[in-house]
Amino acid sequence: MKIVILGCGRLGSRVALKLGEDEKNEIIVIDKNSDSFSLLGKDFKGKIFQGDGANMETYNKIMNEKVDIFLALTNIDNTNIMAAEIAKQKYKVEKTIAKVDDPIRARAFEELGIETICPTLLSEKKINKMIEKKKIKESESDGDV
Amino acid sequence: MKIVILGCGRLGSRVALKLGEDEKNEIIVIDKNSDSFSLLGKDFKGKIFQGDGANMETYNKIMNEKVDIFLALTNIDNTNIMAAEIAKQKYKVEKTIAKVDDPIRARAFEELGIETICPTLLSEKKINKMIEKKKIKESESDGDV
Repeated sequence: MKIVILGCGRLGSRVALKLGEDEKNEIIVIDKNSDSFSLLGKDFKGKIFQGDGANMETYNKIMNEKVDIFLALTNIDNTNIMAAEIAKQKYKVEKTIAKVDDPIRARAFEELGIETICPTLLSEKKINKMIEKKKIKESESDGDV
Repeated sequence: MKIVILGCGRLGSRVALKLGEDEKNEIIVIDKNSDSFSLLGKDFKGKIFQGDGANMETYNKIMNEKVDIFLALTNIDNTNIMAAEIAKQKYKVEKTIAKVDDPIRARAFEELGIETICPTLLSEKKINKMIEKKKIKESESDGDV
């Protein structure tokens, strides 16, 4: 699979390294800041491309061949939303995932048919589970269960 | 339960509202920026406290009574780590959860016995699942399964 990842921050770099473990995957990581690529370490076998996700030129240069998965994982919701739209509409990428921190925008965007991941919602769910577990533990020790 | 939440950003405010739905919970939300409290809306029944999580004074003022759960959810890993340590060590809060965006620090901190949530790791897991699903779908349509 050809996989393009926009944003080489903590999340983008980890995802790139993980997906790069599979030799069948061809990974391209884009970031406007070349320093970010250091997060990939020296064993990363994919390609890196310095370019701004808010600039169409970037996509013209690397999306001309079929891309199977496009992941927009910068720290800026608007950039991710725009990039995912471009990948889906202009380059017909089948699987497009955008990171959207704002839960309200994430939901609106999902309704437009682009998959999102919302770290805020994921964290909220996790916290609820952790607290639920504490409550269950306490009611058990109180003899309620 | 008495629950103290440090940080009234997207995550902190959502968690406060959710936990506040249970009338048995007494919620106190701390933020150094009073504008942040607007995220709670006008129906929030808990208390708000303007104070800096990096300042011990803040805790002296609100942690003198027993706190059951302390959540450190600001956008700054170091503040969250410090706050969680104070809650656990000085105020003996039984359940302390800190948001730590950096996965490496999150793991180190978990080893010190404080529960963390790492939005980066949660997002990474979610992306892996979403891509795994695509792969399974494709191999099914290829007749591999």
